[in-house]
Amino acid sequence: MAKQEKDLSVLFYDTLKDIYYAEKQILRALPKMAKAAQAEELRNAFLEHREQTQGHVERLDQVFELIDKPARGKTCDAINGIIAEGTEIGEDFKDTEALDPGLLAAAQAVEHYEISRYGTLKTWAGQLGLTKVVPLLEATLQEEKKTDDLLSKLAQSVNKKAAA
Amino acid sequence: MAKQEKDLSVLFYDTLKDIYYAEKQILRALPKMAKAAQAEELRNAFLEHREQTQGHVERLDQVFELIDKPARGKTCDAINGIIAEGTEIGEDFKDTEALDPGLLAAAQAVEHYEISRYGTLKTWAGQLGLTKVVPLLEATLQEEKKTDDLLSKLAQSVNKKAAA
Repeated sequence: MAKQEKDLSVLFYDTLKDIYYAEKQILRALPKMAKAAQAEELRNAFLEHREQTQGHVERLDQVFELIDKPARGKTCDAINGIIAEGTEIGEDFKDTEALDPGLLAAAQAVEHYEISRYGTLKTWAGQLGLTKVVPLLEATLQEEKKTDDLLSKLAQSVNKKAAA
Repeated sequence: MAKQEKDLSVLFYDTLKDIYYAEKQILRALPKMAKAAQAEELRNAFLEHREQTQGHVERLDQVFELIDKPARGKTCDAINGIIAEGTEIGEDFKDTEALDPGLLAAAQAVEHYEISRYGTLKTWAGQLGLTKVVPLLEATLQEEKKTDDLLSKLAQSVNKKAAA
């Protein structure tokens, strides 16, 4: 393996550990967000997304297996920061009409972080010739984008109530 | 103003302070990223985006004025985490062919954070009837999306070199 390729594969593995950690933190955060949510449709969306996130973790397990590396997480300051902001909003706006809009905003920040990471990882997997890995990352990327679209739609209806 | 509307306007102001802080941190990070970048096209992209970011801060100043509130930042753990990860990559992959791909990935994580925040703020501004604010947020949102697209294209060419 050329030096350059080795560098990129190290970065690929590092970033894989980053999103693996992030997905596990999201798995822990979603039930709390569902519990906090006021609107039933939002609560359901968070619970459904938790199921989906479980599937994303399993796909990452497959990716680690395909590149023959141990499945490990690496502390991701970015997702910790995003989740911490969501938790703060949950506390500051508890029992107010702005709670659901705030939770939705936090969830969309999470989705966008994931969209950027999976997009990057998919590009790198292609460049590294990891042909079996690409469709796994692509599948999750599409699901994250769909979830973000769904949350955008919910933001229109849930927030309308808040501003009414 | 109805209680609900007040809640959402408080959340709107809070989130405005969050992105104001984030933009200022990005202003400080971009010259460092430009200095670290190996490919000239990437260095130029970071420097051009710095100019653009200055414009985003000015638009936010206008928004604060329109809602008659002081322009203030509020520590944003999310952007600090994203920038910290980028800095770490810059150090870990210094002098390797994976440096530029790593910097690009960090920059795209920044863009996606901003896309999610400006999207949310624009929706809320509309719901709060802040008709003069909406186009300001929309203008920045479109610029962030365009920058993300440009970075995606650069990721294809810059990374190709890294994996070659």
